[in-house]
Amino acid sequence: MTNAFTSSGLFGTLLSDPAIAAEFEATAFVGRMLRFEAAWTDALATCHVVTAEDAAHALAAIKRFSGADLATGSDRDGLPVPALVAALKRELPEAARRAVHTGATSQDVIDTAMVLTCLTVLDRLTERLDRVIAAVEALADRFGDRPLTARTRMQAALPATVALRLDAWRRPLVAHLARAALLREELAAVQIGGPIGARDRPAAHVATCAGHVAEALGLPLGPVWHSDRSRMMALGHWLTLVTGSLGKIGQDVALMAQQGVAEITLSGGGGSSAMAHKQNPVAAEAMVTLARYVAGQQGILAQAMIHEQERSGAAWALEWLTLPAMAEATGAALRHAEAVLSSVARIGTPDGTDAPG
Amino acid sequence: MTNAFTSSGLFGTLLSDPAIAAEFEATAFVGRMLRFEAAWTDALATCHVVTAEDAAHALAAIKRFSGADLATGSDRDGLPVPALVAALKRELPEAARRAVHTGATSQDVIDTAMVLTCLTVLDRLTERLDRVIAAVEALADRFGDRPLTARTRMQAALPATVALRLDAWRRPLVAHLARAALLREELAAVQIGGPIGARDRPAAHVATCAGHVAEALGLPLGPVWHSDRSRMMALGHWLTLVTGSLGKIGQDVALMAQQGVAEITLSGGGGSSAMAHKQNPVAAEAMVTLARYVAGQQGILAQAMIHEQERSGAAWALEWLTLPAMAEATGAALRHAEAVLSSVARIGTPDGTDAPG
Amino acid sequence: MTNAFTSSGLFGTLLSDPAIAAEFEATAFVGRMLRFEAAWTDALATCHVVTAEDAAHALAAIKRFSGADLATGSDRDGLPVPALVAALKRELPEAARRAVHTGATSQDVIDTAMVLTCLTVLDRLTERLDRVIAAVEALADRFGDRPLTARTRMQAALPATVALRLDAWRRPLVAHLARAALLREELAAVQIGGPIGARDRPAAHVATCAGHVAEALGLPLGPVWHSDRSRMMALGHWLTLVTGSLGKIGQDVALMAQQGVAEITLSGGGGSSAMAHKQNPVAAEAMVTLARYVAGQQGILAQAMIHEQERSGAAWALEWLTLPAMAEATGAALRHAEAVLSSVARIGTPDGTDAPG
Amino acid sequence: MTNAFTSSGLFGTLLSDPAIAAEFEATAFVGRMLRFEAAWTDALATCHVVTAEDAAHALAAIKRFSGADLATGSDRDGLPVPALVAALKRELPEAARRAVHTGATSQDVIDTAMVLTCLTVLDRLTERLDRVIAAVEALADRFGDRPLTARTRMQAALPATVALRLDAWRRPLVAHLARAALLREELAAVQIGGPIGARDRPAAHVATCAGHVAEALGLPLGPVWHSDRSRMMALGHWLTLVTGSLGKIGQDVALMAQQGVAEITLSGGGGSSAMAHKQNPVAAEAMVTLARYVAGQQGILAQAMIHEQERSGAAWALEWLTLPAMAEATGAALRHAEAVLSSVARIGTPDGTDAPG
Repeated sequence: MTNAFTSSGLFGTLLSDPAIAAEFEATAFVGRMLRFEAAWTDALATCHVVTAEDAAHALAAIKRFSGADLATGSDRDGLPVPALVAALKRELPEAARRAVHTGATSQDVIDTAMVLTCLTVLDRLTERLDRVIAAVEALADRFGDRPLTARTRMQAALPATVALRLDAWRRPLVAHLARAALLREELAAVQIGGPIGARDRPAAHVATCAGHVAEALGLPLGPVWHSDRSRMMALGHWLTLVTGSLGKIGQDVALMAQQGVAEITLSGGGGSSAMAHKQNPVAAEAMVTLARYVAGQQGILAQAMIHEQERSGAAWALEWLTLPAMAEATGAALRHAEAVLSSVARIGTPDGTDAPG
Repeated sequence: MTNAFTSSGLFGTLLSDPAIAAEFEATAFVGRMLRFEAAWTDALATCHVVTAEDAAHALAAIKRFSGADLATGSDRDGLPVPALVAALKRELPEAARRAVHTGATSQDVIDTAMVLTCLTVLDRLTERLDRVIAAVEALADRFGDRPLTARTRMQAALPATVALRLDAWRRPLVAHLARAALLREELAAVQIGGPIGARDRPAAHVATCAGHVAEALGLPLGPVWHSDRSRMMALGHWLTLVTGSLGKIGQDVALMAQQGVAEITLSGGGGSSAMAHKQNPVAAEAMVTLARYVAGQQGILAQAMIHEQERSGAAWALEWLTLPAMAEATGAALRHAEAVLSSVARIGTPDGTDAPG
Repeated sequence: MTNAFTSSGLFGTLLSDPAIAAEFEATAFVGRMLRFEAAWTDALATCHVVTAEDAAHALAAIKRFSGADLATGSDRDGLPVPALVAALKRELPEAARRAVHTGATSQDVIDTAMVLTCLTVLDRLTERLDRVIAAVEALADRFGDRPLTARTRMQAALPATVALRLDAWRRPLVAHLARAALLREELAAVQIGGPIGARDRPAAHVATCAGHVAEALGLPLGPVWHSDRSRMMALGHWLTLVTGSLGKIGQDVALMAQQGVAEITLSGGGGSSAMAHKQNPVAAEAMVTLARYVAGQQGILAQAMIHEQERSGAAWALEWLTLPAMAEATGAALRHAEAVLSSVARIGTPDGTDAPG
Repeated sequence: MTNAFTSSGLFGTLLSDPAIAAEFEATAFVGRMLRFEAAWTDALATCHVVTAEDAAHALAAIKRFSGADLATGSDRDGLPVPALVAALKRELPEAARRAVHTGATSQDVIDTAMVLTCLTVLDRLTERLDRVIAAVEALADRFGDRPLTARTRMQAALPATVALRLDAWRRPLVAHLARAALLREELAAVQIGGPIGARDRPAAHVATCAGHVAEALGLPLGPVWHSDRSRMMALGHWLTLVTGSLGKIGQDVALMAQQGVAEITLSGGGGSSAMAHKQNPVAAEAMVTLARYVAGQQGILAQAMIHEQERSGAAWALEWLTLPAMAEATGAALRHAEAVLSSVARIGTPDGTDAPG
């Protein structure tokens, strides 16, 4: 889905994230599909399914590959791999064509390239999460001892300090960082099962090749997961947790910034076309928006668990519509969080305010 | 959200729709925002808030406007209107600046431009819906009398004809066309309330200007709906109904195309990178995917009904993340439906199959 | 789904609504299924499919029916109708058994009884909606002229009056009342199509009986809608709009009740087990909760539009899990709204507060 | 939410699970809340906040407690704890009242009792999951070597064996069992933070009492998680995975049971009120329904991550509306899975069917 409204510049990067989007973009993703195909060709030679010479021809073609009309192929086939493989083969003498993709299937290529993409994205997101945690800690250093009225159920509860609130912000983020390490272990596996998810079909070499490709790509082999989408769900779950915790921070900031409450002062902040005096907590609001968006997408991604038979075109494509958008939203939310937290000029109950009863 | 995975060419137009996306794109949308601003300037002159000469200067600047860095503005302000207005004013002598946007607010501009966009999109979608209905009717003419076993709860039920199935496809689509006319009436209204949704603030001229702008844009005036998002929900509801009914067709086609069932033959169809004999019902599957996607988005869009106070930045932006994507998905689903239905070479229980008991 | 946590008394009626639940309860629903069966038996006699005498026997059995083990039947058949029909037939001499249900199917009974249920529920909900609107109007009479700072994007915007806020609460509710009338027209139709949704199968009398039943039940006949679930979606959409608008009110009230803002004073309100000084805006919070719950359910109900072939057991049952809960949640939200609005002791910017710049 | 339609006997246990529901029911849950209160009273004495004698009085009252009108209390306070505490105190001499609940807050009681509930539920569900896995393995023993055509994208792909399909069913279930062990570790912690989630407020004894209570309840202490709902999300995620994998099995079974495909024969199965010859795969369909239901609920539960300030009444209650229903739906899905798998009389491509090309 293009969603040109939020991605064509009108809203800047308020609701998008160019760096994360770039990892899912055609150029980067085709690069990762080619890494798979190169490793597969290598494996075919190692397993003596094809000659070293044919493999060398094929590898040269893979290396030279500079784009093809994958869009037309996808419009016809529902995914870009058949067109990619055909384009590679067109560059080869008849005899060498077997050195490309033989025994592999589109899902092997796309799922494995998707894993490589997700691992890179996870790196980018955890780097940002590190910085967001650091920003919370910097605030705690500066303002932790200041008084801040604790509020429960939208009502003033008891006197407390800024540290109580900041610790409630920081704690889940640190836990999400630890969860990211477990997630990485769960995610990191090639998905290679050949056409029907059986490594001995259509030929015994698929299993051996799978092992070689896994090693070449630096990923564990693990069992086939063609119709078990728990890994994709685990990533979605983590993205939901992260944006959820950031949405909590965004909501808190927006509440603290209200006139009459005045528990936070942000430098910068959004201007109004009608009211020059206003300082809208734009990024804090976007954190709430993105959290609600990602939360809901997880409920849609989860529909893709119902993956009929040996491969569901319908369920699989639902992952493509949701997960990349969730990852990008998480990237944007982390960016906003870092910006908001870094722009805090003051935090805590304003002087002269009575403590709650 | 960019979702580069599904919008950067890798998947062609399987999961996107360039024509619908174009209506939400910056160029088209800025054009509609400028139509609002031009009508507002005109109204300011008509109401004698500004002189005819100042208005003429402003209108010339609006006409000349050839883009500005709205992205940077949106990153700062959360929406592009403050930067747009500032860019227009920069082109004007000090005295004439009041002839731009005075008394209007960002939400007036964006909501009204969004209504214009949605009405255009609704036109495009109903045109396609017309063609899909025609395609179903053409099938009924060709194959309606052929036998087709009715199936309930995934089990053969009773002998019937192809007409029974096709009529169940056609009937809701025709009803959705009728609903589109009611939706158009509901959607078609400017949203003008000034900064706080009160037409008498910040000045009495807002109410008069609102009437002039509505007339100039060819939209009814109606009451302010700044914090009542029922109209956006109504559009989302219609998109959900349309894609839902198309998803039902796609599911039926995929079930009919199964080996052993063989109730439909499609010409064309998707190729496999591993199995040359396969003809995957790619577009039918995509119709299911897009239906599930849009269905879920409606549950997220609905969260935006909780629109606090006089304007919620967080709730409002949730509409921007969901509605344009839903409209685009509906466009893609209609395109696929027309293609699938036009590619039917045969429909009905294959000869030599026993009727159910 | 039982959800014993929220329905077994632990939370009173905070998150449930006994009066609405009662309409969906076995006793009430079986009563409506029996109304269908009685009308059908009558129609069979009128159409001369069975003798008047056999019909009289059958009607007597239907009238006498005092419950049967429908649960066991549903566990076996997935719905209660086969067991209900069998129980009725067991009371009849062999010859008269044809006077019960002949030509009808389970879906005819359940969908039509569901329509009757939904219309009754709609009456209950619109009565409450009337009272909520009256409560808003009463507040406007008492407090409309008081000053209230308008707030946009969680920031003080401009001075305004309580009337501005109350009018934004009232306007969508009044519109929802008007929409309820349209919804009633859309909902009000029997669903009678016989086993495969074709009124001429298994016998021509089904079409004639359908007309008689419609008249007897006081519902229009209309076309078959066995696999077109748009009507159920329309009800869900209306429930989502109503709870959404109430959620907005609840959110506003919770924000107004904050210490430091103090724009509303509620009498009564929730106690805390730890902090005796607190007055939690419990019902206002519940309005937000219920709105988010119903919003999300609409995205699940919408998945049921993908209703394969002539009847989908899987999609149909998804309606049963969502719609009754959505209706009940709406009932609870309306109840809370009336209570909250009736408990307002004061509304408006507190004296001595500076107006925004 | 009551959802009387699916829980009042009309549908038997098709869409509910009495055993799981019983764990969330008032009696069971009040029992767990009393375990908390008893442990807290003990801790107060151990920490010398109250005398041993007062504690003994309080413990006797807790032990004697035989129900109170918690519903009325919840209607007023939004949760049952204030009424429960008041009822306990009413049984005590004035001086001993401090031995009940002092320093604890409603959230401590409810969250901790919910953890105990969830751990018990997890036990029940994993026992059932064990049996479902055993049922798949029994099928593999009986039918694994039989031919079954692999199907991808709803099209016959390559010849394979039943073992391929069954292994794809079994593998994720075994993984979910392993995930249950990790989930248990994540879930198992008391939630004790006192009124504002700070263990040193309102008094230093809260922290010490928290440790004693954790030990008494056999749960780790861990940090406060009053506003970090990741644990509840983790449970929801696991329920979504389990029902998703079961939904895949249900969908596969329904597809295999189609006439023309005939890859599975189930003994028993649902009857039709209109067509005596039909055997509807009722439980398989219910597995799909429940999977889609739980999937969507996770997207709603996730909205509860946005938990403002030190306690959000609105977000918290959203957990209560979703999680217990998700757990119950998972229980029902596991029950159906065991029944379906145990009723398989035959599985595999029927004799005399041509293998795909």
